[in-house]
Order: sequence, then C-alpha cells, then structure tokens
Amino acid sequence: MEMYTDEYFMNEAMKMARIAFEEGEVPVGAVIVCRNKVIARAYNQTEKLTDPTAHAEMLAITAATNALGAKYLTECKLYVTLEPCVMCGGAAFWSQLGELHFAATDPKRGYGRVEPKLLHPKTKVFTGVMADESKQLLDDFFKNLRK
Amino acid sequence: MEMYTDEYFMNEAMKMARIAFEEGEVPVGAVIVCRNKVIARAYNQTEKLTDPTAHAEMLAITAATNALGAKYLTECKLYVTLEPCVMCGGAAFWSQLGELHFAATDPKRGYGRVEPKLLHPKTKVFTGVMADESKQLLDDFFKNLRK
Repeated sequence: MEMYTDEYFMNEAMKMARIAFEEGEVPVGAVIVCRNKVIARAYNQTEKLTDPTAHAEMLAITAATNALGAKYLTECKLYVTLEPCVMCGGAAFWSQLGELHFAATDPKRGYGRVEPKLLHPKTKVFTGVMADESKQLLDDFFKNLRK
Repeated sequence: MEMYTDEYFMNEAMKMARIAFEEGEVPVGAVIVCRNKVIARAYNQTEKLTDPTAHAEMLAITAATNALGAKYLTECKLYVTLEPCVMCGGAAFWSQLGELHFAATDPKRGYGRVEPKLLHPKTKVFTGVMADESKQLLDDFFKNLRK
C-alpha cells in the first residue's frame, strides 16, 4: 500500500486548515513535502499575527526554506487547501516550487483568475483532490462569521 | 521648509537599499510611513535569511502591521526603491495600502507588467522619485555579480 499519495498529503494540509478554523482564522492549511517527507506545516494566521502576509503558503514556504537551508523548493511539493492568491503564487514563483497541489479553487482571489502564468514555468500544477472538503470548511467558516 | 517630502522618504528607502548592497543582497529598500512617521524600515534579505519571500516590501509590511497592531495599512505609504513584484503587490493588496511610491520600474518582474490591477483599488500609485539613483545601484550590483 502506498501511503504517500496526494490524498494523504492533502489531508495533512486539511488538518492544518481545521486548526485555523478552530482558532477563528480563515481555514486554509498547507504542507510542503520533500522526498515524501513533510518538511513544513502551516495554517493561515493573519488574525493571530495581525499580519496580512501570514497566509498558510507564505509561512510554509518560509519554514520549508529554513528547514532545507536553501532558497529554492525545486524538488518540493506544496499542498494547500485553497488556490493561492497572487501574493502566494508570487512566493511560489520565487521559490521555484516543483509542484503545486491545491484543493478548492478561489474564484475571487485565486492567482489563476488574475494571471495563471505568474507561477514559475517549471512548476507543475495539480488541483481538485479534497476540493469538496476544503470548500465545505470554508463555507462553514464564512457562514458562522455572518451569524 | 517641508521635511517630509516624497524625496525625503524615498531617500530613507535608498539608505536601506545601500545596506542591502553592502551585504551582497539585491539592493532594494523600503520604508513605511504613517502620519509622516517612518514606522518600518527594511531591505531585501533573501540571501541572509535563505528565504525567497524576504523581499524588502514583505518585511516592511509585516513590521508595519506589527508596529500598528493592525492588519491594514490604509493610512500608510510604502516607499520602495524598485517596483514591487506580484508577491509584494499582492501583500500590498491584502494590507489595503494607502499609497505606493516606487522609484525604478522593474521591466522583468514588476507587478505592472503582469497585472497592474492586482493592487487594491484604493491604493494610489506614484513613481519616478529617485528612479535614477535606484537603477544605478541595481546596475552596479548586477555588474559586480557578473565579474
């Protein structure tokens, strides 16, 4: 049995998103995987850190490059529960990310709506795994907010 | 005599860029000004921090929101010596930045080449002050690199 499937890693990212949810943050989670090992885990902390740049992907990219002691993530895969925004897409570009896997699409702020080509040309993109679970968690979050 | 001119603040950003130059970093500097007070100063530290997200603007935005204890920079002005990339433009978007002032344009990686509309619709953009000084410093840096 192959444990290290995309579903496995995306589920790890979903665990991070659920922590964000519990803490009242927009529930987005991310993990970065290098040679089948999770080298960084993060969730959105814009509220806790009062920092609009503290998206899950930004924190994960910084943590992963710290872990590797290298500026590039060419051999790494980022799993994130929501399509990255242009800021995070730009960060992925600079990191020369190997693979981007995102679950739900973000029709409002996703980088793909602005400019799909802003990623690094070598970054392979995969999408859809656990998209429904991620969208449900986000919908629940915003439904609670409006109450 | 008005001390708090755009030239004054851009010169503060240039001082940061020169520190980056001395430290072997791509020489970009930034300051964030709120009610004529510099509340954050930063320079590019991607090499020192081995972090591709450690652009001057990102570090300045994080520092400024920390200083204010607020997630938004609607009343603030960012002065940066080079046109922001899409990552930094996206960060400026999330911060709802009041004014963006940049010196030199970046024909290769500037957000304006990708999508000028990625900034927040309320952000006013000003450009050109000290553009020549900034471009000269960048040219000197890359000339040295190639030696």
